[in-house]
Amino acid sequence: MANGGTRAPAQVPPGVQCFFGDEARRRRAIEERVVSVFEGWDYEEIIPPLFDYADVFGGALQPRTYSFVGRDGSLLALRPDFTSLLAKIAAGRLAQRKAPLRLYYSGEVLRYEPPRAGRQNELYQMGLELLGGERVPADAEVLAIAAECLENVGVEDFVLTLGHVGVFAGLTAGLALDESRLELLRERVESKSAEGIGEVLAAAAVPEEARAPLLALAHLAGGREVLAEARSLCAGAPPALQALDELAVTVQALEAAGLQRHVALDLGEVRGFDYYTGLVFRAYARGLGFEVGGGGRYDQLLARFGRPLPAVGFMLGLDRLALLLERRGALPSAERPVHESVHG
Amino acid sequence: MANGGTRAPAQVPPGVQCFFGDEARRRRAIEERVVSVFEGWDYEEIIPPLFDYADVFGGALQPRTYSFVGRDGSLLALRPDFTSLLAKIAAGRLAQRKAPLRLYYSGEVLRYEPPRAGRQNELYQMGLELLGGERVPADAEVLAIAAECLENVGVEDFVLTLGHVGVFAGLTAGLALDESRLELLRERVESKSAEGIGEVLAAAAVPEEARAPLLALAHLAGGREVLAEARSLCAGAPPALQALDELAVTVQALEAAGLQRHVALDLGEVRGFDYYTGLVFRAYARGLGFEVGGGGRYDQLLARFGRPLPAVGFMLGLDRLALLLERRGALPSAERPVHESVHG
Repeated sequence: MANGGTRAPAQVPPGVQCFFGDEARRRRAIEERVVSVFEGWDYEEIIPPLFDYADVFGGALQPRTYSFVGRDGSLLALRPDFTSLLAKIAAGRLAQRKAPLRLYYSGEVLRYEPPRAGRQNELYQMGLELLGGERVPADAEVLAIAAECLENVGVEDFVLTLGHVGVFAGLTAGLALDESRLELLRERVESKSAEGIGEVLAAAAVPEEARAPLLALAHLAGGREVLAEARSLCAGAPPALQALDELAVTVQALEAAGLQRHVALDLGEVRGFDYYTGLVFRAYARGLGFEVGGGGRYDQLLARFGRPLPAVGFMLGLDRLALLLERRGALPSAERPVHESVHG
Repeated sequence: MANGGTRAPAQVPPGVQCFFGDEARRRRAIEERVVSVFEGWDYEEIIPPLFDYADVFGGALQPRTYSFVGRDGSLLALRPDFTSLLAKIAAGRLAQRKAPLRLYYSGEVLRYEPPRAGRQNELYQMGLELLGGERVPADAEVLAIAAECLENVGVEDFVLTLGHVGVFAGLTAGLALDESRLELLRERVESKSAEGIGEVLAAAAVPEEARAPLLALAHLAGGREVLAEARSLCAGAPPALQALDELAVTVQALEAAGLQRHVALDLGEVRGFDYYTGLVFRAYARGLGFEVGGGGRYDQLLARFGRPLPAVGFMLGLDRLALLLERRGALPSAERPVHESVHG
C-alpha cells in the first residue's frame, strides 16, 4: 500500500473518472431512462466482457486501446467500444438465433487519450445494434429510437444529422488517390474547408470536372434541399447518386415518423469508424459543441466474425448527456436532496 | 481484425463474462433491488475509476490483480475490489465531507483466476461502506442493510455468520508464531480441522494450556451459546475476551432489530481481507455452497490514505446472487417473456 515516490496518497491517474453526489444520481437516472426506451423497443441486453483478445478491436481505435498480456501470454485489450464485441457475440454465442437480432448494451469503454487533452479515458456508452433485417426500416427504427432516448432524458431540441459514406466514397472511387491523400481529403471535408479540399485535389492533379462535387461537400449541409443540389453535382458518379437515393428514402421514412423537425443532412459527414458502409449520423443538442451520440450502418463487420449480416446501430455517450443536462440545470432524478458541494 | 493463429473468430479469453437473455434481465433486476435498499438507507453512490495506480490495491489481492503499464510509464491495475478505492476517495475527493460518510458502489471488479479453476475473472459487486460513526450502531446498521438487501431480492432463508478477527488474534498474540505458521494455522481454523490445528500447535511447541481455545475454534459455531463457551475457553486471553464482548453487543443489537433468526456465530471465521480489524461476517443462503457476500470492520485502512477513520462495510456478489436465484427458478424480473434457449 506504499505510494510510489512523491505521489500523494489521494492522487489519481490522469483521465480516470470519479463521480458522486448529484453527478452519480444524474448518471444513474439517464441510464435508466435510456435503457427503458431500449427495452420498450424490445431490444435485449447483452453484458459483454470488459476485455477480449486485442485483435477483436481492429481499425481506427487500435492506437487508443489499453492492451495488456494475459497470464496465458495472449494479448488482451480493454474494450474501446461495444460494436465489435456485440458483432462477435452475435456470430458466436448467439449463432443459433435467427436474424434480425435486436441487442443493446450499457457500460464503460476505455480509450487512451493523451494526458494533456483533458479528456476522460473512461467513457460510458449506451447503445444498440440491429443485426439483419431490411435496410430502410432498420435505419429508420434505429434513428427513431435515438430520438426517443433523447426526448426521454429531457433533451427536446436535438438534431440528427445524416450523411452517407457512399457519397464521399463514390466521388473519390475513380480518382486513384493513395490512402494518405484520401485520409487528408477526408479530414478537410470533415472540417468543412473548401480551400483545404481544393489544395488536396490540386496536389493530386484531380481533373477539374471531378473537383466540384468534392468541394461542395464543405457546404452541403442543411435541410432536404441539400439532396437535390447534391444530385445535380454528383450526376457523373453513379455510386454517389445511389447513396443519395438511400439517404432520401431514409429521410422520407423519418418524416413519416413525424421526426422532420429533428432531421438535418450533412453530406460532409465522413468521419467515424472505418466499419461504416452506408448511413452515418450524429445527434447534436443546443449548447454542446460536440455530438452526444451517433451511429451508422456497417454491413461488412459481422462477416469478419463468420456471420455475414447487414447491421445498423447507434450509441449515446452518458458522459456527454450528463454534461449537457448539468449545464441546463436539468437533473432527471430530482427526488433526492441536493447535498452540499464538495471540494477536493 | 485478423484472428491470431488457430483461434476461432468467436473464441473468448478464459474467465470473461457474457450475459444475455434471462441472465442479463435477472442481473439488472437484482442490481436495481439492491441499490434501492442502499438508497433507502441514504447511502450515496460513488462511481470510482475502473483502474488506479497498482499500489492502491495492496495486500491479499495483489497476486490476483490485472496490472498494466500506463502510457506515462506508471504501473496501473484494474480494480480487484472497491473498498480500497472508496477509502482513497473518502480521504481525497471527499476530504471536506464530515464523517460519518455513507457510500455505496455497484460495478465490476477484475481478478485473475487460474484458467483451470473454471472461475470468472470478472465479478460484479454491490456494496457499501460506513466511514466514521460509533462502532456498535454502525456494525448493526451494515448488517441490517445486508439483511434487507437479501430479503429484497427474494432470499428469505439467509444466515449472517458473525466472527471477529480479534478472537484468533488475541489467542495467538503471545505465541511468537512466525508469519508462515500463523497463516497455516489460520487456514486450518478456517477449514475447521481440529486435527490440523493440533499439528501446527504441536510443531510450534505451543504450551498445552494455550492450545485448547485454538482447537475449539474448529467447532465454536452456532447460536448465542457459542459466546459463553468461548468466554470460558478464552479466560486467559483478555484481547480475545474483548473481541467476544464486542460480538455479544453486536448480536444483542441484531436481536433488538428482529434479526435473530438470521444470525449465527462462527468464531472460526478468520479468512478474509487483511484489512479487517474487528467484526467479520458472511451471508449464506440455502442451496449455495459458498457465501453470497460478506464484510467486516476495517479501522486502519483509511489512515493509509491520510484520513484515519474507523469503518465497516459489506459487499454482495451479483454473480452469486444471480446463480442462487436461477437455481431456485426465481427471476425477480418476471415481466418479460422467456426467450428460446441459446446454444453456442
